[in-house]
Amino acid sequence: MAMRTRLTAEREAELYEAVLDLLAEVGYDALTMDAIAARTRSSKATLYRQWHSKPELVARALHQTKPPGLDEIDTGSLRGDFYEILARTDDSKLERDSALLRGLIQAVHDNPDLQEALREQLIEPEKRELDAIVRRAIERGEVSAANPAVKFVAHMLVGALFSCLIIDDQHPDKAYTRQYIDAVVLPALGV
Amino acid sequence: MAMRTRLTAEREAELYEAVLDLLAEVGYDALTMDAIAARTRSSKATLYRQWHSKPELVARALHQTKPPGLDEIDTGSLRGDFYEILARTDDSKLERDSALLRGLIQAVHDNPDLQEALREQLIEPEKRELDAIVRRAIERGEVSAANPAVKFVAHMLVGALFSCLIIDDQHPDKAYTRQYIDAVVLPALGV
Repeated sequence: MAMRTRLTAEREAELYEAVLDLLAEVGYDALTMDAIAARTRSSKATLYRQWHSKPELVARALHQTKPPGLDEIDTGSLRGDFYEILARTDDSKLERDSALLRGLIQAVHDNPDLQEALREQLIEPEKRELDAIVRRAIERGEVSAANPAVKFVAHMLVGALFSCLIIDDQHPDKAYTRQYIDAVVLPALGV
Repeated sequence: MAMRTRLTAEREAELYEAVLDLLAEVGYDALTMDAIAARTRSSKATLYRQWHSKPELVARALHQTKPPGLDEIDTGSLRGDFYEILARTDDSKLERDSALLRGLIQAVHDNPDLQEALREQLIEPEKRELDAIVRRAIERGEVSAANPAVKFVAHMLVGALFSCLIIDDQHPDKAYTRQYIDAVVLPALGV
């Protein structure tokens, strides 16, 4: 009989890393709870008890890749805040994140459950964090509240990652992302 | 014995449309020359004689979805030129194009032949056309040659399409794309 203990935070983090590695290897469609159980040496019962479904597990694993504490960033300038977001990641994480996004974009379309879980765990929290950063820039007078680019901040940043994959056939790294912020995001916002 | 006549332009266009429909339905991996031959009532010999390989056929089919004559656009202003590009497409074409891009981004990564064919047939020609439009804007004095956003024009436009799919969970339409051009692309270019 499975013990009904909670997983430790450390064990949970291990599981999420294994899920993401597996996801990057085989893609969402081929990712099964059986494969996750085998790779992580867990029982399927444990996985289902903790996460209920594959979409939820994947969304939480992706959520966990986000650097913590983005909502505390407040350097005093919009450029400083964007740079600080970048400072909390590294090129290998950016590479894995963009590989995962590339592999998930079709799966998200084909699986409404995954879409909803990702929206809740990843897209909405990230948009709220960016909104808070931009709102403070507006309060400081750096950005005009009427600037039409304000509603496209997340679009510009996500678009930067994908267009690097497609047009340059490369994974975005920190240097590229910083250039894009300076050349596109900040000028569009009038900074 | 197969007759060695060239396909008419009309028949070729029909074939490309069928390939794109099939691609949108089943995805790149499941798209076979057999399925294309069946759908288009052609012989496989004809398909191979004309296109040599699946990546080449797909790249040419995608190339053909581009509105013709983009390289003749010259309205006298950068905004006018971007709007004219949009005027030559419609929402249903934009929807299919973004659905195809979404379905191909992983396949492009997994299939170097497809990547090379798409680069040659689609990405490079499109970049050349955009470059010509931006170069004229520089010559007119609308855009500074030193503006760092000049090298990101294709990135901004491609990024707009993908971020709409991911963040808004919608296919980009002309109204959205026009807003993005006005809010992001032109201000980044200093227009």
